[in-house]
Amino acid sequence: MTLLTLPIPLLLALLAAALLLRQAVGRRRLRQIIFEADTPAGKQFDLALLALIVLSVVAVGLESDPSLQGRFQGLFLRLEVGFSSLFSLEYLLRLLCSERPLSYARSFFGIVDFLASIPPLLGLGAVGSKYFTVIRILRLMRVFRILKLGLYIREADRLKEALLASRRKIFIFLLMMVNLVVLIGALMYVIEGEAGGFTSIPTGIYWAIVTITTVGYGDVAPVTPLGRIAASAVMLLGYSIIAVPTGIVTAELGRTGTDGSKAAASPGPKGCDSCGEPQHLAGARFCHRCGATLIPRPQP
Amino acid sequence: MTLLTLPIPLLLALLAAALLLRQAVGRRRLRQIIFEADTPAGKQFDLALLALIVLSVVAVGLESDPSLQGRFQGLFLRLEVGFSSLFSLEYLLRLLCSERPLSYARSFFGIVDFLASIPPLLGLGAVGSKYFTVIRILRLMRVFRILKLGLYIREADRLKEALLASRRKIFIFLLMMVNLVVLIGALMYVIEGEAGGFTSIPTGIYWAIVTITTVGYGDVAPVTPLGRIAASAVMLLGYSIIAVPTGIVTAELGRTGTDGSKAAASPGPKGCDSCGEPQHLAGARFCHRCGATLIPRPQP
Amino acid sequence: MTLLTLPIPLLLALLAAALLLRQAVGRRRLRQIIFEADTPAGKQFDLALLALIVLSVVAVGLESDPSLQGRFQGLFLRLEVGFSSLFSLEYLLRLLCSERPLSYARSFFGIVDFLASIPPLLGLGAVGSKYFTVIRILRLMRVFRILKLGLYIREADRLKEALLASRRKIFIFLLMMVNLVVLIGALMYVIEGEAGGFTSIPTGIYWAIVTITTVGYGDVAPVTPLGRIAASAVMLLGYSIIAVPTGIVTAELGRTGTDGSKAAASPGPKGCDSCGEPQHLAGARFCHRCGATLIPRPQP
Amino acid sequence: MTLLTLPIPLLLALLAAALLLRQAVGRRRLRQIIFEADTPAGKQFDLALLALIVLSVVAVGLESDPSLQGRFQGLFLRLEVGFSSLFSLEYLLRLLCSERPLSYARSFFGIVDFLASIPPLLGLGAVGSKYFTVIRILRLMRVFRILKLGLYIREADRLKEALLASRRKIFIFLLMMVNLVVLIGALMYVIEGEAGGFTSIPTGIYWAIVTITTVGYGDVAPVTPLGRIAASAVMLLGYSIIAVPTGIVTAELGRTGTDGSKAAASPGPKGCDSCGEPQHLAGARFCHRCGATLIPRPQP
Repeated sequence: MTLLTLPIPLLLALLAAALLLRQAVGRRRLRQIIFEADTPAGKQFDLALLALIVLSVVAVGLESDPSLQGRFQGLFLRLEVGFSSLFSLEYLLRLLCSERPLSYARSFFGIVDFLASIPPLLGLGAVGSKYFTVIRILRLMRVFRILKLGLYIREADRLKEALLASRRKIFIFLLMMVNLVVLIGALMYVIEGEAGGFTSIPTGIYWAIVTITTVGYGDVAPVTPLGRIAASAVMLLGYSIIAVPTGIVTAELGRTGTDGSKAAASPGPKGCDSCGEPQHLAGARFCHRCGATLIPRPQP
Repeated sequence: MTLLTLPIPLLLALLAAALLLRQAVGRRRLRQIIFEADTPAGKQFDLALLALIVLSVVAVGLESDPSLQGRFQGLFLRLEVGFSSLFSLEYLLRLLCSERPLSYARSFFGIVDFLASIPPLLGLGAVGSKYFTVIRILRLMRVFRILKLGLYIREADRLKEALLASRRKIFIFLLMMVNLVVLIGALMYVIEGEAGGFTSIPTGIYWAIVTITTVGYGDVAPVTPLGRIAASAVMLLGYSIIAVPTGIVTAELGRTGTDGSKAAASPGPKGCDSCGEPQHLAGARFCHRCGATLIPRPQP
Repeated sequence: MTLLTLPIPLLLALLAAALLLRQAVGRRRLRQIIFEADTPAGKQFDLALLALIVLSVVAVGLESDPSLQGRFQGLFLRLEVGFSSLFSLEYLLRLLCSERPLSYARSFFGIVDFLASIPPLLGLGAVGSKYFTVIRILRLMRVFRILKLGLYIREADRLKEALLASRRKIFIFLLMMVNLVVLIGALMYVIEGEAGGFTSIPTGIYWAIVTITTVGYGDVAPVTPLGRIAASAVMLLGYSIIAVPTGIVTAELGRTGTDGSKAAASPGPKGCDSCGEPQHLAGARFCHRCGATLIPRPQP
Repeated sequence: MTLLTLPIPLLLALLAAALLLRQAVGRRRLRQIIFEADTPAGKQFDLALLALIVLSVVAVGLESDPSLQGRFQGLFLRLEVGFSSLFSLEYLLRLLCSERPLSYARSFFGIVDFLASIPPLLGLGAVGSKYFTVIRILRLMRVFRILKLGLYIREADRLKEALLASRRKIFIFLLMMVNLVVLIGALMYVIEGEAGGFTSIPTGIYWAIVTITTVGYGDVAPVTPLGRIAASAVMLLGYSIIAVPTGIVTAELGRTGTDGSKAAASPGPKGCDSCGEPQHLAGARFCHRCGATLIPRPQP
């Protein structure tokens, strides 16, 4: 296959195409289309990119199947050259029309864009190699950037806020879990022994995690009476503490939500006419910032 | 079996029966009985239909069992002819007594009613065929329509509201899950290889979903140390993010519920006429802020 | 074994003992000890009964183990005669000292008490028979009665209230689940076929329940690509709707709890000096019931 | 190996080193470093101890793997002598510089410290013995003490409070679960019999716990139709009551959290000096009720 031996000429051709495109469309307009989602062209570009990402990931996934790989090897190679070329073109365009190309190249999504476009193209001789597979799957990360531009940004922010607010609680919870799981794993290794597959402490810890998270594969499972009693205790424990992360996030989400809805539902004053302060306790009669009298909002 | 060769005459006979019934009962009264649940006859009709649906689904289920199918083939055929005839009769009656037959025929439940009655009758020669099985199981969808008429409409609405209000959050959550699961699946395919059954990326994704949802069949499970460490991380992750959908719906339900119950519990005054204070304890007779007498809101 | 042939004389002896005990202790005092938990003797009786129940259930459990059954058959028989005699004595005493013996005998716990004491004694020749095993395990139900008398009644009530308040929502949720599970089970039976163990629709339904509840035994699991895709969708669905029952109960518990704590935390007035009304909105200046001025409670 | 025969001289050498160290650093300063986390030296000591604990647990874990044990036996022995010596030195130092050595030695962490240091040293001849393994894993418990000193104390306290507040509810919930699980286990033993692996009532109980907690190993699973129907009911039950512990903790966390965050977020005025209104928005400068100037509360 001649394609495999020509990654550098291909890249040069793509660069030329990118430069021509910038010339034709204009750098500013190109930036609007690629980096923003406000214009119709920008939205269409995002949708096309989204479709391309999904298709390329589907192709990588199907290619990994041994039976399909054997039958359609040529097709998969051609598809991958096509996808990689398009993503490389996009990456080059982003670099060429960005206002600060260097800071884009160094940003998280800049690195993801680079990894998902140029290396797969250079490594086409190694199609099917497992390490390139992961790099190509990285393309999925780009979906998040498109979403960030899109409609769901507020919902994502709400979720992120709730998770961030519970960050420390979740960290300490995970740390306690890890501690607990190591203790339980070592204990089960001693109690149960090799009969049930507990061949070492790491295996015991693996079992403890599989059990306490209620995943329960069953590849390692206790068979002795004492081991089963201990395992039952671990399961009931896991069942009880599953409540903790749920509780943390729920309480946090509930709070964000409640505050939001309270502010919205508040039949209180619209805002202070003197200083403009918008937030007041329900029932406030004086502005808590400037002390001016508040005019109650008429009830709906 | 002669029955199998006569679906068209049977349908014609059912149509004649439906026309006669409309004549005998009267179109208006028939509509009340079939489409509404306010009258005693309407309630009895719904209950009978509910029983018929449950029985027909039980029959389809038992028929699918190979050992039972062999022994009671004749019985199942006769039962199915009976059930399909009754459902066809019901469908024809609905068409004949509806005020706008066409809009009924095109509605969601109209299509379900049609699929669950006429095609099974026409396809009786193919009893046991798997595709007709699904069509016949569709009858269960009708249960929801009966419920919509029945007692539990408010509870169902409350649940639906909470789900609808969290719709966008759940959508973005599922989208992130799909993204995550593809990344994890590809990574595990590379890390673990064929030893643990990770034969392709789609299999890896299947494993990731089985694991992150804590289902954990164990048909695909990591066996290498590195694979087990990665799997443990995935499980703890799944265990942590199970909190997110729970939190979303809980927060939503809590909000709806609180508002709802507050509104329900406060048949109290609309607001104080003197000072405008909107919030009062249920049953308050005097404004807690200015002491003025409150005018009770008329109870619904 | 002579014991087995003498259940009737044994019962008569127990009746005589019960009558003598009533004579010796006095009917009223006996009723206090047995039916109430306020006196020290009543508490000791409850504790002894609790220990007896736990021991008898442990004995039944161990007896069911084939290897232990073979070795200790005589011991188990003697233990069972002893336990059954004591429970029979207790049942007879309850009957003899209750104020309304008939209404006790007909009550839920009266029936449980009877089943757990007399039939096992009469059926001693059939020790090891599986049906008597269940009857003897019923003794555990008595633990709930003891708890009802004991310390945890308020916590149990709070839980019960929350569950009762969500009763209708949970019912409609379960009904939708059953519907959903039948539809999914039939669909998977058609999609997946016998390869993955989906031999009939009931098996498919069983698989759907195992999967949607995230139990995931793995005895039935999809193996075809299409089946695995469908199964993945079912898992993500189950993962999402697990939030619904949680949300329902949490919202309910949170409400009960919040109301309680709000009343407790309220830095508002102690209560109206004029009319004695204890509950006021935080910040209330006038009694919402009688309109009198409220004296603010000093802050802690 | 000569090391194994010399635990007593080694301990004496460690004691001498500890005494010398106390002499050199000074008792008071040593106490600050070891028992507190306020000084830079104290923080560095805690971090070093944390690293040592993690490393020693990793070593114990790897040692338990049969293949690694065979190859690196000498290395593991030397590592264990090193770790145990360091922990013993730490324990002796704690004893020597504590203000009340006896009360430290009797405290929970004093006992854990002792078990994790001296016995492993004395038992070095039995390295690889499973019972010493558990004692050495106990070192992990020390992590919690370090955390108690560290940054996350508030989050841990918040979690602990919520769990403590729900203690009684969780206890009664677990008790009901145990009762339920025994009843279900006995019933399934009778219904399903030995075909599905239900060889005794304890096995049935084990299955019930595995199922109701949604772990689902699949080592014991029903195969008869009746057994599968009963199992389905148990799963739906488990799916429904998983909501209860979640609800309890969530409600508790939500309550604590709301109160806590409100208190934390309002470094605002204590209350209005003019009208006594206690609730103000964070940063409020004027009373929202009477308009008086508020005196800011000093920030902690």
